[in-house]
Amino acid sequence: MGIIVQKYGGSSVANAERIKNVARRVAETASENPVVVVVSALGDTTDELVELARQINPQPPEREMDMLLATGEQISIALLAMAIHALGREAISLTGKQVGIVTDDAHTKAKIVEITNCDRVHEELSRGRVVIVAGFQGATCDDDITTLGRGGSDTTAVALAAGLGAERCEIYTDVDGVFTADPRIVPEARKLDRVSYDEMLEMAAAGAKVLQMRSVEFGRNYKVVINVRSSFNDNAGTEVKEADEYMEQPIISGVIHDVSEGKVTLFGVPDKPGVAARVFAALAEANINIDMIVQNVSSEERSDISFTMPKDDFAKAETVLRELADELGGRGYNIDPDIAKVSLIGAGMKTHPGVAAAMFSVLAENGINIEMISTSPIRVSCVIGEADVDRAVRALHDEFKLGEEVPSGL
Amino acid sequence: MGIIVQKYGGSSVANAERIKNVARRVAETASENPVVVVVSALGDTTDELVELARQINPQPPEREMDMLLATGEQISIALLAMAIHALGREAISLTGKQVGIVTDDAHTKAKIVEITNCDRVHEELSRGRVVIVAGFQGATCDDDITTLGRGGSDTTAVALAAGLGAERCEIYTDVDGVFTADPRIVPEARKLDRVSYDEMLEMAAAGAKVLQMRSVEFGRNYKVVINVRSSFNDNAGTEVKEADEYMEQPIISGVIHDVSEGKVTLFGVPDKPGVAARVFAALAEANINIDMIVQNVSSEERSDISFTMPKDDFAKAETVLRELADELGGRGYNIDPDIAKVSLIGAGMKTHPGVAAAMFSVLAENGINIEMISTSPIRVSCVIGEADVDRAVRALHDEFKLGEEVPSGL
Repeated sequence: MGIIVQKYGGSSVANAERIKNVARRVAETASENPVVVVVSALGDTTDELVELARQINPQPPEREMDMLLATGEQISIALLAMAIHALGREAISLTGKQVGIVTDDAHTKAKIVEITNCDRVHEELSRGRVVIVAGFQGATCDDDITTLGRGGSDTTAVALAAGLGAERCEIYTDVDGVFTADPRIVPEARKLDRVSYDEMLEMAAAGAKVLQMRSVEFGRNYKVVINVRSSFNDNAGTEVKEADEYMEQPIISGVIHDVSEGKVTLFGVPDKPGVAARVFAALAEANINIDMIVQNVSSEERSDISFTMPKDDFAKAETVLRELADELGGRGYNIDPDIAKVSLIGAGMKTHPGVAAAMFSVLAENGINIEMISTSPIRVSCVIGEADVDRAVRALHDEFKLGEEVPSGL
Repeated sequence: MGIIVQKYGGSSVANAERIKNVARRVAETASENPVVVVVSALGDTTDELVELARQINPQPPEREMDMLLATGEQISIALLAMAIHALGREAISLTGKQVGIVTDDAHTKAKIVEITNCDRVHEELSRGRVVIVAGFQGATCDDDITTLGRGGSDTTAVALAAGLGAERCEIYTDVDGVFTADPRIVPEARKLDRVSYDEMLEMAAAGAKVLQMRSVEFGRNYKVVINVRSSFNDNAGTEVKEADEYMEQPIISGVIHDVSEGKVTLFGVPDKPGVAARVFAALAEANINIDMIVQNVSSEERSDISFTMPKDDFAKAETVLRELADELGGRGYNIDPDIAKVSLIGAGMKTHPGVAAAMFSVLAENGINIEMISTSPIRVSCVIGEADVDRAVRALHDEFKLGEEVPSGL
């Protein structure tokens, strides 16, 4: 029987009762397949530790932050092992370091380089034990503890599944899987049975929270089948895997929206080579992730540059923007937090032209103004006013008939 | 300049404010000597983790308990490192595993076998960093995390001081040092400037809480000078070191009392060879530590056996006692929780006979009945009624003039 890797997030192990529930689910699977479980920190543990650190040092060294945060997952794995033992099944917990998750030394956002101790995992599995591994953490070659950044437990799970040659990797979360739209906004949104890695990557980039982008990339690179499902029921969830000839290629798989970004405009900067490079280099140096970019010539030899970026980084960005406006002799800048991004994603777009035009029409018919546009071969994104976002998502879901099993909107 | 090892207990790092205080004290020392700091878990962290574990599994596997509990110290070291950084001094935290504290595999009460990575500590010190090591924890040869049992951080500190060839090991606690008696009972009790390892071991065995016995043994075996002092003031504390010709050998160094034990009596067991062995083998199997033992013949071919043991283990003991009474055909047993042990300790006793007799007289003059007696070359202990303990300690401290710089009571 193939190895199953299961990953449970913080809300699935938030208290003693939920940990016992996870233990029951794990024990059930373990009666048929060897199981490796990856867990995150209990509920709000990570946030509490961060708060404690800030009280002591507003700018704690990142190495020490990792030393601190890694304890969250270590607590979870020990407690889950105890809960499984209480059900009469053997289990053993292992830290990231103990399974040999080697990372680079980019503390608080380290990347996995290799997994060197899969042997230990195989050995414990062969003794009939459930192996429980701390997500979100690893260690450098120099034996310093690192963490992988928010959502890093997904990456741990997929990387372990790849390293162990697992049959599949199940990511348990608080939703039933990947939906055609956010069910809180579109009640008739449909759960997708499967999506391709490429679609999932575009969805994650477009703002879908269900899987961390890096874990999907890992899955794609190592061909790990990822099953996203709920830890609160037995529904089948969504399979993320290679798009193949047998997989139906829907024109549009889903509508994704994102209200976490804002729009910044630099007015009247010189319209000459090197200016855009200067602007975005300065922002990159300040570690600010830019999403969409639009540039247009506003008057003779002057242009406006607009881009979207996380609202959380506005404070950092303002320092940079003030300097840039001075340096480039522009006409100032504007920061607009009240925008939203709506995206249509579908692997079939590659072979079906006209999706973008159809999307613009739907928005226009609903009186929704488009501020920015960006596309990829399998995605069309529009920036609109934040107040219009729910209406836009519903209109697009409805017009393209995404609630139906085989959407026929085009 | 010699390396100073400093150990801070859980109450010294119970919250952000206290951690900052410890950081200031460490930074001060670090401006003159290389400093290695050993810390325990924050305040009640360990108790809270134990409680969480019990909710999930009333009998958690000890390996997983260690995985869980080791996080307490890992949190402390990270936070203390951050606090020292906030003062503008470099610091680095290391887990027990990272400094190579290798233990046996007796989970929850592991013993240190060796320390294999003192090089890392020396290297960090040579870079001008304060090194902060997690107390109470280590790892087996197989890379499993272990803990050293209650008070294990003292042992970590003394073992590290030995391994690093430190100038001294400072144990910071909430009292000023080792006293001639408990100052809460005897206000005129005097702080001792120094005691020998042997005296300190007897004091710890007699119930003094200030230093864990194993850490003193470690100190004696590796000749580490241990300085016990308060983390709340700058008083000099007590030095625990080898008794040498220059060290004054007081006849009596202190009066120690202990109310944590109770007395058990097995009535009318057969007075023949092998019975005592059977009784104490059964108790040892149940992992119950026995302290004093008295046996007397009560009638023809029958004897009573009395012993003292921790009150906390009474429940465990009763199961064993019931079986023993049946098996040996005795006349039942009695458990008396209302006793106390009072001990006089002094290295000079070896060469001054008559201390025991003098002690019994003092107790008799005060109308205090002695239930059991035990002695070593440098200690006399009496079991008395718990209600008499404060009076006994005061009378002995007074009669033997222990409050005076050179006691002249004998």
